[in-house]
Amino acid sequence: MAGTLTVALDAMGGDSAPDVVLEGTKLARERYPNLRYMLFGDGSVLEPAVNGSPVLAECCEVVHTDTVIDGSMQPSQALRKGRESSMARAVQAVKDGDAAVAVSAGNTGALMALSKFILRMMPGIDRPALVSLMPTTRGESAVLDLGANVECSDENLVQFAVMGAAYARLVLGLSRPSVALLNIGTEELKGHDEIKQAAERLREVEAHFDFTGFIEGNDIGKGAVDVVVTDGFTGNVALKTAEGTALLVTELLRRAFRNSPLAMLGYLLSRGALRSLRDHLDPNTHNGGMFLGLNGLVVKSHGGANAAGIASAVGVAKDLVEGDLLQLIADDLTLFAGALDVDAQTAVSS
Amino acid sequence: MAGTLTVALDAMGGDSAPDVVLEGTKLARERYPNLRYMLFGDGSVLEPAVNGSPVLAECCEVVHTDTVIDGSMQPSQALRKGRESSMARAVQAVKDGDAAVAVSAGNTGALMALSKFILRMMPGIDRPALVSLMPTTRGESAVLDLGANVECSDENLVQFAVMGAAYARLVLGLSRPSVALLNIGTEELKGHDEIKQAAERLREVEAHFDFTGFIEGNDIGKGAVDVVVTDGFTGNVALKTAEGTALLVTELLRRAFRNSPLAMLGYLLSRGALRSLRDHLDPNTHNGGMFLGLNGLVVKSHGGANAAGIASAVGVAKDLVEGDLLQLIADDLTLFAGALDVDAQTAVSS
Repeated sequence: MAGTLTVALDAMGGDSAPDVVLEGTKLARERYPNLRYMLFGDGSVLEPAVNGSPVLAECCEVVHTDTVIDGSMQPSQALRKGRESSMARAVQAVKDGDAAVAVSAGNTGALMALSKFILRMMPGIDRPALVSLMPTTRGESAVLDLGANVECSDENLVQFAVMGAAYARLVLGLSRPSVALLNIGTEELKGHDEIKQAAERLREVEAHFDFTGFIEGNDIGKGAVDVVVTDGFTGNVALKTAEGTALLVTELLRRAFRNSPLAMLGYLLSRGALRSLRDHLDPNTHNGGMFLGLNGLVVKSHGGANAAGIASAVGVAKDLVEGDLLQLIADDLTLFAGALDVDAQTAVSS
Repeated sequence: MAGTLTVALDAMGGDSAPDVVLEGTKLARERYPNLRYMLFGDGSVLEPAVNGSPVLAECCEVVHTDTVIDGSMQPSQALRKGRESSMARAVQAVKDGDAAVAVSAGNTGALMALSKFILRMMPGIDRPALVSLMPTTRGESAVLDLGANVECSDENLVQFAVMGAAYARLVLGLSRPSVALLNIGTEELKGHDEIKQAAERLREVEAHFDFTGFIEGNDIGKGAVDVVVTDGFTGNVALKTAEGTALLVTELLRRAFRNSPLAMLGYLLSRGALRSLRDHLDPNTHNGGMFLGLNGLVVKSHGGANAAGIASAVGVAKDLVEGDLLQLIADDLTLFAGALDVDAQTAVSS
């Protein structure tokens, strides 16, 4: 099986696991016929399901695990009690070289903690970041950090920019993504010290992305840049506020259509078109966030992903492996480290 | 004219000043027949307009000013050069007791700086906060700080909660608003130290609002609480991200309707209903943010407000004066100060 890419799937993670994960794997098999899968989870459920499906039987290996990380488990609990869980074993398979990438739709905090514990940080990165795609009028943008770190230094933000740009190159297929820091104004004097200093560092270095400076919250939906960089507190609030607003608008739209028989008729006539709106906003079409900065690849699917969402996450996983994300990150980090060395020499010689 | 409430209007503030301000004042005169207005701005434009309108002539006094604060002026510039501007003179009228409240649709940063300089902070408040209303599925919620302070201590956040609750009582007409801190999880252990400590303080004291703990970004659109409290960086990003997302969804909706002749027919049939959606999201119906924490009342209208928006801002100004916002804030501050004294005594005696 040399050259075959193996994906480690946490079959027990997500709201409708393992059924949705199994269905998603079938769909992924159709889309990417050359991948193989290790399915981690309850063997008494997974074995019959895989054996009963010719599609799954030819591409899946079931690895039985006794425990499951549930959605309410705290990260600290997951580290204490979850080391033999389906989630942890999927990540461990990446560490051991049995799989090239792990995919889980389970508890985000637990997945973060276990991934960091098992894989450790990659050289040159101090803190991991959670990245995901958000819908825009132009398509999609990558946004990070979405909650892995409550507070971030300027150095963390620079590293997030490097990692987010590498992710966007592979997942959005861009040769030179544009990158900006999220701020409360576009003028250089706005914002707190960390982002001002991060902006200075990012302006200095010629990396594989274009740093465009600051953007504001309303620029995210416009798709003003390909990669939006911020601390985990702000990023999490922005992501969830955007989700809440999309729900608000669609709820108001639903009420508007129910307002009168005429409007209801209008709704029925435009239903097909409205479906395309829903698809554009559907998290399943933007599935495949991940933890950046670890010594290995872990893709985080939405917990509520359907089979198509799981297949999308597998597609992202495949792109990340084939494009060698970790190498892309390491290359750009070297450029920034080089600039630091020059700074240091200049400081010494002056 | 004892007992008559006078509003100081910055007639030159906003994207379409002074026309929109004049039209808005006419509309406000219809809605609130007992108010009087001081219009600050270019007398050569305002005098003829007021004299030419019987409605305005009976309720307006024009005060000529030579300078105007433009939209791009930095706060520091406004303080140096804008002290005789229409904006500054409107705020000065509140300070001098000539008007009960000032309303401006001009440059937010300049208005903040001038208001703080002229009116000073009210006793017991360390930092001002910008509050405004955001639309929700339940109606509207007050959100603060929207950008006056990039970083906030736990004490600042407690003061914002007190001020935001008093604002919500008057502007949303609630006897006992619910208040929460914006966080990246609802568990007590999430978030940074400032919000954890602010939550502890807010739980201790029985004030004129119900503190419910933490909410997340997606709870804003749901209208989970009446008052959302956060630092100015996060609040500004959340507000603008919500605005950007609402634009994104309505843009996608527009494209969906244009997708096919059938969908276009559907759109035409449901146009009336869709107008109610637009109205609910229209900033003009949620106009009347303000700077809280100053020794006087300054209402900040959206810069792009239309006449109805200006009239709404005047309505908010009237509610704030009649309900005596500053007294409501002072009352709840006393409760928190009392709790602090008790804490201090306990600490000494133990």
